[in-house]
Amino acid sequence: MMTMCQSAEYALRAVVWLAGQHETTVSTPEIAQRTRVPPGYLSKVLQILARAGLVESNPGRTGGFRLARPAERISVLDVVNAIDAVQRIRRCPLGLKSHKHALCPLHRRLDRVAEMVERAYGETTIARIVAEATTVKPLCETA
Amino acid sequence: MMTMCQSAEYALRAVVWLAGQHETTVSTPEIAQRTRVPPGYLSKVLQILARAGLVESNPGRTGGFRLARPAERISVLDVVNAIDAVQRIRRCPLGLKSHKHALCPLHRRLDRVAEMVERAYGETTIARIVAEATTVKPLCETA
Repeated sequence: MMTMCQSAEYALRAVVWLAGQHETTVSTPEIAQRTRVPPGYLSKVLQILARAGLVESNPGRTGGFRLARPAERISVLDVVNAIDAVQRIRRCPLGLKSHKHALCPLHRRLDRVAEMVERAYGETTIARIVAEATTVKPLCETA
Repeated sequence: MMTMCQSAEYALRAVVWLAGQHETTVSTPEIAQRTRVPPGYLSKVLQILARAGLVESNPGRTGGFRLARPAERISVLDVVNAIDAVQRIRRCPLGLKSHKHALCPLHRRLDRVAEMVERAYGETTIARIVAEATTVKPLCETA
Protein backbone atom coordinates (compact mmCIF):
# COMPACT_ATOMS: atom_id res chain seq x y z
CA MET A 1 0.00 0.00 0.00
CA MET A 2 1.45 3.28 -1.09
CA THR A 3 0.98 6.15 1.34
CA MET A 4 1.12 8.44 -1.71
CA CYS A 5 -0.24 7.72 -5.18
CA GLN A 6 2.12 7.67 -8.17
CA SER A 7 0.65 10.81 -9.77
CA ALA A 8 1.15 12.84 -6.60
CA GLU A 9 4.69 11.61 -6.25
CA TYR A 10 5.40 12.59 -9.88
CA ALA A 11 3.83 16.01 -9.23
CA LEU A 12 6.12 16.50 -6.24
CA ARG A 13 9.16 15.59 -8.30
CA ALA A 14 8.17 18.24 -10.88
CA VAL A 15 7.43 20.95 -8.30
CA VAL A 16 10.64 20.26 -6.37
CA TRP A 17 12.60 20.38 -9.63
CA LEU A 18 11.00 23.68 -10.69
CA ALA A 19 11.64 25.15 -7.23
CA GLY A 20 15.32 24.42 -7.71
CA GLN A 21 15.30 26.37 -11.02
CA HIS A 22 13.94 29.52 -9.32
CA GLU A 23 12.23 31.79 -11.86
CA THR A 24 13.42 29.96 -14.95
CA THR A 25 10.76 28.45 -17.19
CA VAL A 26 11.53 24.80 -17.95
CA SER A 27 10.08 22.82 -20.86
CA THR A 28 8.04 19.68 -20.23
CA PRO A 29 10.58 17.40 -21.96
CA GLU A 30 13.35 18.78 -19.78
CA ILE A 31 11.34 18.37 -16.56
CA ALA A 32 10.43 14.84 -17.71
CA GLN A 33 14.06 13.99 -18.33
CA ARG A 34 15.26 15.45 -15.02
CA THR A 35 12.54 13.88 -12.90
CA ARG A 36 12.45 10.58 -14.84
CA VAL A 37 8.70 10.81 -15.35
CA PRO A 38 7.17 9.60 -18.66
CA PRO A 39 6.59 12.84 -20.68
CA GLY A 40 2.92 12.16 -21.53
CA TYR A 41 2.13 11.38 -17.91
CA LEU A 42 4.04 14.44 -16.70
CA SER A 43 2.20 16.68 -19.16
CA LYS A 44 -1.15 15.69 -17.62
CA VAL A 45 0.19 16.17 -14.10
CA LEU A 46 1.50 19.65 -14.98
CA GLN A 47 -1.88 20.64 -16.42
CA ILE A 48 -3.56 19.67 -13.15
CA LEU A 49 -0.95 21.63 -11.17
CA ALA A 50 -1.54 24.65 -13.45
CA ARG A 51 -5.31 24.48 -12.90
CA ALA A 52 -4.64 24.34 -9.16
CA GLY A 53 -2.56 27.52 -9.42
CA LEU A 54 0.71 25.88 -8.35
CA VAL A 55 2.59 26.17 -11.64
CA GLU A 56 2.10 28.48 -14.59
CA SER A 57 2.82 27.82 -18.22
CA ASN A 58 4.44 30.08 -20.73
CA PRO A 59 3.19 28.78 -24.07
CA GLY A 60 5.58 30.78 -26.33
CA ARG A 61 8.61 29.57 -28.23
CA THR A 62 10.50 29.50 -24.94
CA GLY A 63 7.48 27.70 -23.48
CA GLY A 64 7.45 25.64 -20.35
CA PHE A 65 6.50 25.76 -16.73
CA ARG A 66 7.59 27.53 -13.58
CA LEU A 67 6.15 27.78 -10.08
CA ALA A 68 3.21 30.15 -9.84
CA ARG A 69 4.24 31.28 -6.34
CA PRO A 70 7.34 31.09 -4.16
CA ALA A 71 8.31 27.61 -2.99
CA GLU A 72 8.05 28.89 0.61
CA ARG A 73 4.31 29.16 0.05
CA ILE A 74 3.79 25.69 -1.45
CA SER A 75 3.49 22.73 0.90
CA VAL A 76 3.72 19.05 0.04
CA LEU A 77 0.02 18.93 0.96
CA ASP A 78 -0.84 21.62 -1.61
CA VAL A 79 0.70 19.46 -4.32
CA VAL A 80 -0.83 16.22 -3.08
CA ASN A 81 -4.27 17.76 -2.69
CA ALA A 82 -4.14 19.22 -6.22
CA ILE A 83 -3.69 15.71 -7.59
CA ASP A 84 -5.66 13.50 -5.22
CA ALA A 85 -6.61 14.97 -1.85
CA VAL A 86 -5.79 13.08 1.34
CA GLN A 87 -9.11 11.53 2.32
CA ARG A 88 -10.25 11.97 5.89
CA ILE A 89 -13.00 9.80 7.37
CA ARG A 90 -15.79 12.25 8.13
CA ARG A 91 -18.65 9.84 8.66
CA CYS A 92 -19.20 6.14 9.28
CA PRO A 93 -18.07 4.24 6.15
CA LEU A 94 -20.73 1.59 6.90
CA GLY A 95 -23.45 4.22 6.79
CA LEU A 96 -24.68 3.26 10.27
CA LYS A 97 -27.17 5.87 11.39
CA SER A 98 -26.09 5.99 15.01
CA HIS A 99 -22.46 6.56 14.00
CA LYS A 100 -23.35 9.60 11.94
CA HIS A 101 -21.70 12.11 14.24
CA ALA A 102 -19.20 9.85 15.98
CA LEU A 103 -16.78 7.45 14.42
CA CYS A 104 -16.29 4.04 16.06
CA PRO A 105 -12.85 3.24 17.54
CA LEU A 106 -11.76 1.53 14.32
CA HIS A 107 -12.58 4.38 11.98
CA ARG A 108 -11.51 7.04 14.47
CA ARG A 109 -8.07 5.45 14.60
CA LEU A 110 -7.84 5.18 10.83
CA ASP A 111 -8.86 8.82 10.52
CA ARG A 112 -6.24 9.84 13.07
CA VAL A 113 -3.59 8.29 10.83
CA ALA A 114 -5.00 10.20 7.83
CA GLU A 115 -4.92 13.39 9.92
CA MET A 116 -1.30 12.71 10.88
CA VAL A 117 -0.37 12.25 7.21
CA GLU A 118 -2.21 15.45 6.28
CA ARG A 119 -0.40 17.38 9.02
CA ALA A 120 3.03 16.00 8.07
CA TYR A 121 2.53 16.98 4.42
CA GLY A 122 1.08 20.35 5.40
CA GLU A 123 4.06 21.24 7.60
CA THR A 124 6.63 20.68 4.86
CA THR A 125 7.20 23.39 2.30
CA ILE A 126 8.81 22.72 -1.05
CA ALA A 127 11.38 25.43 -0.20
CA ARG A 128 12.45 23.45 2.85
CA ILE A 129 13.00 20.31 0.80
CA VAL A 130 15.08 22.18 -1.76
CA ALA A 131 17.10 24.02 0.88
CA GLU A 132 17.80 21.04 3.09
CA ALA A 133 21.50 20.60 3.63
CA THR A 134 22.39 17.13 2.49
CA THR A 135 24.92 15.30 0.44
CA VAL A 136 22.13 14.14 -1.87
CA LYS A 137 20.34 16.87 -3.83
CA PRO A 138 16.71 16.20 -4.74
CA LEU A 139 16.40 14.42 -8.07
CA CYS A 140 20.06 15.03 -9.03
CA GLU A 141 22.96 12.71 -9.56
CA THR A 142 25.79 13.90 -7.35
CA ALA A 143 29.21 14.25 -8.93
CA MET B 1 -5.88 9.81 -1.75
CA MET B 2 -6.78 7.06 0.66
CA THR B 3 -4.23 6.38 3.37
CA MET B 4 -5.60 2.83 3.40
CA CYS B 5 -6.85 0.81 0.45
CA GLN B 6 -10.44 -0.42 0.38
CA SER B 7 -9.51 -4.11 0.70
CA ALA B 8 -7.44 -3.47 3.83
CA GLU B 9 -10.24 -1.43 5.36
CA TYR B 10 -12.70 -4.27 4.64
CA ALA B 11 -10.25 -6.77 6.17
CA LEU B 12 -10.04 -4.64 9.32
CA ARG B 13 -13.81 -4.52 9.58
CA ALA B 14 -13.94 -8.33 9.41
CA VAL B 15 -11.13 -8.87 11.91
CA VAL B 16 -12.58 -6.34 14.37
CA TRP B 17 -15.97 -7.98 14.03
CA LEU B 18 -14.55 -11.46 14.62
CA ALA B 19 -12.57 -10.19 17.63
CA GLY B 20 -15.84 -9.04 19.16
CA GLN B 21 -17.30 -12.56 18.76
CA HIS B 22 -14.46 -14.15 20.77
CA GLU B 23 -14.09 -17.83 19.90
CA THR B 24 -17.34 -18.14 17.98
CA THR B 25 -17.08 -19.14 14.32
CA VAL B 26 -19.05 -16.75 12.11
CA SER B 27 -20.22 -17.52 8.57
CA THR B 28 -19.09 -15.32 5.66
CA PRO B 29 -22.66 -14.11 4.91
CA GLU B 30 -23.08 -13.02 8.51
CA ILE B 31 -19.72 -11.21 8.62
CA ALA B 32 -20.63 -9.58 5.29
CA GLN B 33 -23.96 -8.42 6.62
CA ARG B 34 -22.51 -7.11 9.89
CA THR B 35 -19.59 -5.31 8.29
CA ARG B 36 -21.53 -4.14 5.20
CA VAL B 37 -18.94 -5.58 2.84
CA PRO B 38 -20.09 -7.18 -0.45
CA PRO B 39 -20.03 -10.97 0.26
CA GLY B 40 -17.96 -11.96 -2.80
CA TYR B 41 -15.36 -9.31 -2.01
CA LEU B 42 -15.31 -10.30 1.67
CA SER B 43 -14.82 -13.95 0.77
CA LYS B 44 -11.62 -13.12 -1.13
CA VAL B 45 -10.38 -10.90 1.70
CA LEU B 46 -11.01 -13.67 4.26
CA GLN B 47 -9.07 -16.16 2.14
CA ILE B 48 -6.09 -13.81 2.10
CA LEU B 49 -6.35 -13.33 5.87
CA ALA B 50 -6.50 -17.13 6.32
CA ARG B 51 -3.37 -17.62 4.19
CA ALA B 52 -1.65 -14.98 6.35
CA GLY B 53 -2.58 -16.95 9.49
CA LEU B 54 -4.81 -14.23 10.95
CA VAL B 55 -8.13 -16.06 10.65
CA GLU B 56 -8.95 -19.74 10.39
CA SER B 57 -11.83 -21.35 8.63
CA ASN B 58 -14.01 -24.19 9.80
CA PRO B 59 -15.39 -25.66 6.62
CA GLY B 60 -18.04 -27.95 8.21
CA ARG B 61 -21.79 -27.50 8.34
CA THR B 62 -21.26 -24.88 11.06
CA GLY B 63 -18.55 -23.41 8.82
CA GLY B 64 -17.20 -19.92 9.01
CA PHE B 65 -14.27 -17.97 10.27
CA ARG B 66 -12.73 -16.99 13.58
CA LEU B 67 -9.48 -15.33 14.58
CA ALA B 68 -6.50 -17.66 14.43
CA ARG B 69 -4.88 -16.02 17.45
CA PRO B 70 -5.94 -13.70 20.28
CA ALA B 71 -6.88 -10.16 19.23
CA GLU B 72 -4.18 -8.90 21.64
CA ARG B 73 -1.64 -10.41 19.27
CA ILE B 74 -3.02 -8.95 16.04
CA SER B 75 -2.14 -5.37 15.13
CA VAL B 76 -3.79 -3.18 12.53
CA LEU B 77 -0.46 -3.44 10.67
CA ASP B 78 -0.68 -7.26 10.61
CA VAL B 79 -4.04 -7.00 8.84
CA VAL B 80 -2.96 -4.22 6.47
CA ASN B 81 0.28 -6.00 5.57
CA ALA B 82 -1.57 -9.25 4.85
CA ILE B 83 -3.66 -7.44 2.23
CA ASP B 84 -1.31 -4.82 0.80
CA ALA B 85 1.83 -4.02 2.78
CA VAL B 86 2.66 -0.42 3.64
CA GLN B 87 5.36 0.47 1.13
CA ARG B 88 8.48 2.13 2.46
CA ILE B 89 10.88 3.93 0.14
CA ARG B 90 14.08 1.91 0.40
CA ARG B 91 15.93 3.27 -2.59
CA CYS B 92 15.78 6.24 -4.96
CA PRO B 93 12.55 5.94 -7.01
CA LEU B 94 14.32 7.66 -9.93
CA GLY B 95 16.97 4.97 -9.98
CA LEU B 96 19.76 7.55 -9.62
CA LYS B 97 22.99 5.70 -8.95
CA SER B 98 24.38 8.17 -6.44
CA HIS B 99 21.18 8.04 -4.38
CA LYS B 100 21.37 4.30 -4.03
CA HIS B 101 22.14 4.31 -0.33
CA ALA B 102 20.77 7.72 0.62
CA LEU B 103 17.39 9.14 -0.20
CA CYS B 104 17.16 12.79 -1.23
CA PRO B 105 15.24 15.21 1.04
CA LEU B 106 12.02 14.70 -0.95
CA HIS B 107 11.96 10.93 -0.78
CA ARG B 108 13.34 10.84 2.75
CA ARG B 109 10.40 12.95 3.90
CA LEU B 110 7.89 10.82 2.03
CA ASP B 111 9.42 7.71 3.58
CA ARG B 112 9.23 9.26 7.04
CA VAL B 113 5.49 9.65 6.57
CA ALA B 114 5.22 6.00 5.45
CA GLU B 115 7.25 5.02 8.54
CA MET B 116 4.91 7.05 10.76
CA VAL B 117 1.88 5.29 9.25
CA GLU B 118 3.54 1.90 9.70
CA ARG B 119 4.30 2.68 13.35
CA ALA B 120 0.80 3.97 14.09
CA TYR B 121 -0.76 0.82 12.64
CA GLY B 122 1.78 -1.40 14.37
CA GLU B 123 1.09 0.09 17.79
CA THR B 124 -2.65 -0.56 17.67
CA THR B 125 -3.92 -4.03 18.48
CA ILE B 126 -7.34 -5.24 17.39
CA ALA B 127 -8.08 -6.01 21.07
CA ARG B 128 -7.55 -2.37 21.95
CA ILE B 129 -10.01 -1.22 19.31
CA VAL B 130 -12.64 -3.68 20.50
CA ALA B 131 -12.11 -2.85 24.17
CA GLU B 132 -12.06 0.92 23.79
CA ALA B 133 -14.64 2.52 26.03
CA THR B 134 -16.90 4.54 23.81
CA THR B 135 -20.52 5.22 23.17
CA VAL B 136 -20.09 3.91 19.64
CA LYS B 137 -19.22 0.23 19.32
CA PRO B 138 -17.19 -0.77 16.27
CA LEU B 139 -19.45 -1.65 13.33
CA CYS B 140 -22.63 -1.77 15.45
CA GLU B 141 -25.74 0.35 15.50
CA THR B 142 -26.24 1.58 19.04
CA ALA B 143 -29.65 1.26 20.56
